[in-house]
Amino acid sequence: MTDDNLHVVLRARPDPGVTADLFEAVAAPMPTVGPGQFLVRVIWLSLDPAMRGWIAEAANYSTPVPLGSPMTGFTVGEVVESRNAAYPVGTIVQGRQGWRRFAVSDGSDIDRVVDPALAPISTALSVLGVNGATAYVGLVELCNPKPGETVVVTTAAGAVGSMVGQIAKALGCRAVGVAGGPDKVRACLDDFGFDAAIDYKATPDLGPALDSACPAGVDCFFDNVGAEQFDRVMDRINIGARIAICGTIGMPSFPLPVGPRPNRQLLIKRARMQGFLILDHYDRYAAIIEQLAGWYRAGRFRWREDVTDGLENAGSALVRLLAGSNTGKALVRVGVDP
Amino acid sequence: MTDDNLHVVLRARPDPGVTADLFEAVAAPMPTVGPGQFLVRVIWLSLDPAMRGWIAEAANYSTPVPLGSPMTGFTVGEVVESRNAAYPVGTIVQGRQGWRRFAVSDGSDIDRVVDPALAPISTALSVLGVNGATAYVGLVELCNPKPGETVVVTTAAGAVGSMVGQIAKALGCRAVGVAGGPDKVRACLDDFGFDAAIDYKATPDLGPALDSACPAGVDCFFDNVGAEQFDRVMDRINIGARIAICGTIGMPSFPLPVGPRPNRQLLIKRARMQGFLILDHYDRYAAIIEQLAGWYRAGRFRWREDVTDGLENAGSALVRLLAGSNTGKALVRVGVDP
Repeated sequence: MTDDNLHVVLRARPDPGVTADLFEAVAAPMPTVGPGQFLVRVIWLSLDPAMRGWIAEAANYSTPVPLGSPMTGFTVGEVVESRNAAYPVGTIVQGRQGWRRFAVSDGSDIDRVVDPALAPISTALSVLGVNGATAYVGLVELCNPKPGETVVVTTAAGAVGSMVGQIAKALGCRAVGVAGGPDKVRACLDDFGFDAAIDYKATPDLGPALDSACPAGVDCFFDNVGAEQFDRVMDRINIGARIAICGTIGMPSFPLPVGPRPNRQLLIKRARMQGFLILDHYDRYAAIIEQLAGWYRAGRFRWREDVTDGLENAGSALVRLLAGSNTGKALVRVGVDP
Repeated sequence: MTDDNLHVVLRARPDPGVTADLFEAVAAPMPTVGPGQFLVRVIWLSLDPAMRGWIAEAANYSTPVPLGSPMTGFTVGEVVESRNAAYPVGTIVQGRQGWRRFAVSDGSDIDRVVDPALAPISTALSVLGVNGATAYVGLVELCNPKPGETVVVTTAAGAVGSMVGQIAKALGCRAVGVAGGPDKVRACLDDFGFDAAIDYKATPDLGPALDSACPAGVDCFFDNVGAEQFDRVMDRINIGARIAICGTIGMPSFPLPVGPRPNRQLLIKRARMQGFLILDHYDRYAAIIEQLAGWYRAGRFRWREDVTDGLENAGSALVRLLAGSNTGKALVRVGVDP
């Protein structure tokens, strides 16, 4: 944590696993600020499961991060030098500065200005950031749960899953989480207010556990996993169920794994299953964050952070996240809070 | 085809295939008409692939047809005796009289009154009936295709599939059909106006054939089949694709067959996949038929009928339909047109 610049660049692609040595920290010159530009000192870096896809060679929803380039990522930082009146020195911004200590911006890679009086600025990467917005779009907009309905979410103790559960509770639903390990189950119940939580690692057959947790069946299913957890929840969907596909962390990217075909369940239950990417909804980002801020002010949200110190450790922290070993939103502290 | 009544009753459940001997024709008394009731002489009986599900023991979207009861089915008939002012003698009705020559009704199992001046009354079971309404709901309401988009439909020469193609053309889309055998492919191209049609029986690898037929990828997919045809179309969906699951005739009902998991494609393509049953949309049936009648009057629809004479032959005609051996809408002529 010095005042020197540093980049962490992608050196190789997963083969097939993501390992820390795919990344290398390299010294970088301090960028100069041109007209209309400003300099961002990165403070917080978000680590996200989707990064597995961003660095893969296989066709995906975005162009892969080029080898030799700094890894991309969502950040919170402070404007420390400015030639842009919209972003004066001292402004806190949430953007996509990537794995760098310092980055120049013209505003095009800034998602929003953060109000440090509302909440700790790191929450702009979690409950009041992409994770919260992801939970909002998938649950509220795609699943549209009604009060009293049952909402199931996988990776329930994670940064997105915990928000799905808390929004479900704010909407008057029954929230049921599936998570891995007793600590995560405890977090679901004690920290995030789920009505029930299942430890899939300790439950050889999820079916009966889901039956107990969802006595009225499943109306909304927010899935981050795929594979068997998906299958067992699908066995229990109600007529008119809505399923949001947010992630597939339990499935290999390639080749496509086989499993029970969902066609007949979707037909018989007249159910809807929809994949989404939060990046498609960026034009409405400010409005979504404002919705979340309303619940935040009402004391609806709790969160946990899993903080790694030092940008040079981002790669190993990402490996830990992809292994499910983190507890709470995975963040890298790149610099000190202002 | 006498004036005596006749029922065809379900004697046994599929084990696992549907065979003609599951059904038995039995003489039945002529019903008496009570206050508020009327007597329907059935003229046309519709045979539908969904009947496989109606007679199965396995949990389905409707209660199974009880053993010993007349098989259920959509019909067109003529009111020949009436104590109900809303249905005077001579009225042509499309209802759910089932596999009977004569049935008493109080109106609750009547779907609509048919105008014999608009079109042949048998079309109330096809283009202006449940098949047309099924195509309308799945394509127009669930997929919502835009002009210029590519629509793919399986069982494309069938009663529903041919309507999907013709509605797609009426909406200015590219219509691509998948069907089994040269006669059906010819029907798609010459009778129903598809832009391209693929004979899956003569095409060992559907992939390249679909690539040629869908040079701009697939925006809307109306699937009646599941299994490999489904997989190969899913490989080619565009971002934002909409998939309507109308049937699974290419898949066994039980146990759930395995295949490539669609989760990751739905995610990467931000695609939506939705099952539906036309029975859920009966409250809007008249309005849907009116939409279809507009296209009908504009000369947009052609259709083919595969007619079996005699109610007593309905079982063997159903077996033929489920084997894909029919050409056109499968109908049983139970009585003579008025």
